[in-house]
Amino acid sequence: MNEIEIIEIIKKTLKFSNKNIIKGIDDDCAVIKIDENLYLVATTDMMIKKTHIPSILTPYEIGGRILTANVSDIASMGAKPLAFLLSISLSKNEANEDFIKELYSGLDDFAKLYDCPVVGGDTNSGDELVLSGIALGITDNPIYRRGEIGDDICVTNDLGRVYCALTLYFMLKNNKISYKEFEKYCQKYPKIIEKLRKPIARVKEGLLINKFINGCCDISDGLGKEITYFKNFEIYSDKIFKLIPEDVIEFCEEFNLDPLKVVLNSGEEFELLFTTSKFNKVKSLIDDFSNIYKIGKVIEDGQFIDGEKFCGGGYVHKW
Amino acid sequence: MNEIEIIEIIKKTLKFSNKNIIKGIDDDCAVIKIDENLYLVATTDMMIKKTHIPSILTPYEIGGRILTANVSDIASMGAKPLAFLLSISLSKNEANEDFIKELYSGLDDFAKLYDCPVVGGDTNSGDELVLSGIALGITDNPIYRRGEIGDDICVTNDLGRVYCALTLYFMLKNNKISYKEFEKYCQKYPKIIEKLRKPIARVKEGLLINKFINGCCDISDGLGKEITYFKNFEIYSDKIFKLIPEDVIEFCEEFNLDPLKVVLNSGEEFELLFTTSKFNKVKSLIDDFSNIYKIGKVIEDGQFIDGEKFCGGGYVHKW
Repeated sequence: MNEIEIIEIIKKTLKFSNKNIIKGIDDDCAVIKIDENLYLVATTDMMIKKTHIPSILTPYEIGGRILTANVSDIASMGAKPLAFLLSISLSKNEANEDFIKELYSGLDDFAKLYDCPVVGGDTNSGDELVLSGIALGITDNPIYRRGEIGDDICVTNDLGRVYCALTLYFMLKNNKISYKEFEKYCQKYPKIIEKLRKPIARVKEGLLINKFINGCCDISDGLGKEITYFKNFEIYSDKIFKLIPEDVIEFCEEFNLDPLKVVLNSGEEFELLFTTSKFNKVKSLIDDFSNIYKIGKVIEDGQFIDGEKFCGGGYVHKW
Repeated sequence: MNEIEIIEIIKKTLKFSNKNIIKGIDDDCAVIKIDENLYLVATTDMMIKKTHIPSILTPYEIGGRILTANVSDIASMGAKPLAFLLSISLSKNEANEDFIKELYSGLDDFAKLYDCPVVGGDTNSGDELVLSGIALGITDNPIYRRGEIGDDICVTNDLGRVYCALTLYFMLKNNKISYKEFEKYCQKYPKIIEKLRKPIARVKEGLLINKFINGCCDISDGLGKEITYFKNFEIYSDKIFKLIPEDVIEFCEEFNLDPLKVVLNSGEEFELLFTTSKFNKVKSLIDDFSNIYKIGKVIEDGQFIDGEKFCGGGYVHKW
C-alpha cells in the first residue's frame, strides 16, 4: 500500500462533519470557521527518525525543521501563525538533557522567527524518535489549493537544493563517499546543505500576498506532486529553470543529475507555489524578501509540461 | 530520566511567548486568546503501541480511545470541542485496509458522539504504531487546574475500573492466566473491561458546569497525581470510597488489591476532577448524566489524606 491509497480509505471512512468545518483533509490545513470572517487553520506533520530525519542534522536543526514544516502549511493558507504544539516519543538514545535542550532551543528560536510560540505537547517513551508537530493559525481569508483558468502559476525563490543535499547525504550513508569527502562537498556547496539544515517557512510572504492570489500550497513533497493540486495546468521547463540556482546546476553537472528532475522531486523546500492574476502586484509586495517566478498557467483541461503530457514526480510514502 | 524531569528541561528551554498565549504547557490544554472573550484551547496526546495500547484493544477501540484521550482535555477546560486531527505512523503490520478502516470507524463514531469532526492528519511509515492526536476547542471561560481555599474537591462517576482491567490484561500478558481465564474474568466483570475498551470523555458535563466551578482537570494519570495540581488539599478515604463501584471492590477482594491504591493509581479514567463552591448547583446541572462525589477540600497549606501527609501516586513515564 502507499500513502495515497491509505488516505483514500481514510477519507471514505470518515463521514462525520459539521457546519463549522470549511475544509477537511484535502488541503495543507484544515479550516474551521470560528466567527464571522474568522477562520482557524490547523495542520499536523509528523517526523520519524528513520524515515524523515537525516542523521547529519543536529538536535537544534531537528527542532527548527519540525516547526518549519508545520508553520509552512499555515503560510501556504496565507494565515498568521498562532501557536505550535509538539508531541514527542523519545527512545533511550534521546532521553538526555543535552538532546532535549538543543532540540527545544531550535524550536524556541524558530518560534520567535515566526512569532508562533510553542504552547504545549506530550512526552513519551518509545522505540524510535518520533516528533509530531501541530501548528495553528488564523486568517480572514484562507487560501486553498486551486486556481482560476488563465492564472499564472508562480514559485517563490528557488528549488532543487534540498534534493542535492539529500543526494550527498545518501552517498555518505551508503558509503559511496567518506565523511571527509562529504564535508568537502558541504564546503563547496554551502547553500545546498544550508537549505536542508535550516529551511525557512514563507510566513511573511503568505501574509503579504493573501489578498492577491487565488490558490496556494507549500512545496513539501516536490513541485512535481504539488503542481497536480491545481488540476489543469501547462508549465514550461525553460521557466522552471529560472528557479534553479547556479550551485544546483553545478552540482547536477558534477554528479550527473538531470536538473529538471531534481527540481520536480525536491521536497521540503517550503517555498510557496501559488496562482494569481495579479503577478506584478504580488511581485511588488514581496520583492524585499523573496523572488518569484512564473512557471506556467492554469488551463481549462489537462496537465502539460512543454506541451507534452505531464507525468508527475514527488515523494509518496510506501509500506 | 523521567517525564517530570524532561518537562522541567523543556519548560526552562522554551522562552518565547506573545500576548495571545494565556496558558502554555502547565495545564491540560494550551489557551490562546483569539478575540475578546474567545479562547482557543488545544491539546495533543500521543499513544505508542508498546507503551500505551493494550494488545486486547481492537483497532476500532484504539480509534475511539485516542479521540477520547484528547477530547477529555478539552472537556476538562470546560470548552466545546471544535475539531480533531490525527498523525499516525504505521508499521507494516498495520498498513492494511482492514486495520485502517476499523481504526478510522472508531474515530468517526466518537467524533460524532463529541460533535468533534476529524479534519486532518498526517500518515507515515515507521517501526511501530504511533498515534498522535490533536484536539481543539473553544470557550469564553477556560477552566484551569486550581481551586479557591474552602472549595469542595469533586469527582464525576467512578474510579478504579481501568486499573482493574489493566491488572487483568497484564496477568494475561505475563502468562499468569490463560486467554480462557481472561475471557471468563471479562464476563464476570463486564463494566471493568468496558471502561478500558470504551472510555468516555465528559464533554457535556464540562460544558454544563463551566460557570459554576473554579478549577478542573481530567483524570488521565490517576487521581493520586492529578489531585496534586490543586496544590493544597485535604482528602478523605471514606469519601473516596464512594467513588469505587461494587465490581471494583469485588475485584480487589478476588485479586487481593488495596481499593484505595487502585483508585489513586487508576489512569485514563477520563472522569473530571474539579473544585467548586457551588456543589449543589453543579450536582443539579449534571444529575441526568453523571454522579458527582465530594472527596475533600482545598485548604490553605499542605497535602493531606485522612489527616496524614499525602504521598502521591499516578503514572509517570520513565526511560
